Amino acid sequence: MQLYSFCFSSTSYRVRIALSLKGLEYNYNGVNLRAGEQRSESYIKLNPGKGVPVLVTDEGEEITQSMAILNYLEDSFAQPALLPLDALAKARVLELCNIIACDIHPVNNLKVLAYIQGELGASDQQKDQWYRHWIAEGMQAVEAHLNKHGFGSFCFGESPTLADVCLIPQVTNAVRFNCDMSAYPKAMEIYERCIALPEFQRAAAANQPDMIN
Amino acid sequence: MQLYSFCFSSTSYRVRIALSLKGLEYNYNGVNLRAGEQRSESYIKLNPGKGVPVLVTDEGEEITQSMAILNYLEDSFAQPALLPLDALAKARVLELCNIIACDIHPVNNLKVLAYIQGELGASDQQKDQWYRHWIAEGMQAVEAHLNKHGFGSFCFGESPTLADVCLIPQVTNAVRFNCDMSAYPKAMEIYERCIALPEFQRAAAANQPDMIN
Repeated sequence: MQLYSFCFSSTSYRVRIALSLKGLEYNYNGVNLRAGEQRSESYIKLNPGKGVPVLVTDEGEEITQSMAILNYLEDSFAQPALLPLDALAKARVLELCNIIACDIHPVNNLKVLAYIQGELGASDQQKDQWYRHWIAEGMQAVEAHLNKHGFGSFCFGESPTLADVCLIPQVTNAVRFNCDMSAYPKAMEIYERCIALPEFQRAAAANQPDMIN
Repeated sequence: MQLYSFCFSSTSYRVRIALSLKGLEYNYNGVNLRAGEQRSESYIKLNPGKGVPVLVTDEGEEITQSMAILNYLEDSFAQPALLPLDALAKARVLELCNIIACDIHPVNNLKVLAYIQGELGASDQQKDQWYRHWIAEGMQAVEAHLNKHGFGSFCFGESPTLADVCLIPQVTNAVRFNCDMSAYPKAMEIYERCIALPEFQRAAAANQPDMIN
């Protein structure tokens, strides 16, 4: 398999963690979002959505959208399972995934931050406030969901699920942006536990071939 | 089952379409987002994420996040199927769902529009430009995906899938905001076909108990 990824992209990071947890090998293709490589003609052919990640299967099929890729990996490489089989238990995992994938990440995306500064004239301070506002709104919901339905050492049980796969990249980004995370002790405890594991470390930005400073 | 929904919410509309396609009965609870009812103390207990929709199962379990609810309905009420069983075919459907659920809808959400006007001082014109910008970016990706992988009368085949369930509410919103949709003929053809069907009509804003003008 081939993965098109940017070291600092949290959606790429999700997929890298899942590949790592499932022990799958792949070729890494760096796409530098800061240099605009996702808008090159050849890349748009690969992904008209102009984003990372893209997974190319061994049959040459290109799959875009991290949540679709995670589902595909789960369907194609069942073990270790990252989603419970029970419908309600699976819903609990997907609720947490989607708080992150739909409520937090999209509004704090590079292209959205560029728009509020470039088109709406937001200052650096306003950009930071924007970023922290959506982190706070979303992380409150994450923490409440974990307190209501979470159990065990990870988000849901004694092994990682797609909830942890989505949570860790989002918290990583928030920490990098110096957000105050003290109000989310449950999420932070899970974050600290996960980033100490080799499966998560292999997937971290610092250990990617396109790591930049 | 109980559904907490707002007539104009496109994420609520997704769930209403799926319930309708599957022929499931439910009690409707209107939550007026414009009046801020999602921020009331009692509602936050139901959904700390302060959003709609919420599905409450017959066992009293509250499920938030429209994409998690759609998955739960698919797992619990298999027929008619709204997701293919084949992993790659399913990925094609979920790619389209997630272009909408992650790339378009979140940035054009009511709360985000309120923030760019209230906190960043965007004018009405800048708000409209913002809205149309993300519709255009996302719909280009939707149209390209349909041209590359779509087939049949609906997005993927001769019966609706979750792709149609996500597409129709997003296009409905874009049309309501007077976006130019002429560059997306494939998506619009599917939209026109779907909104003529009784299953989609039952789920439309105009036919909800909380319809307001």
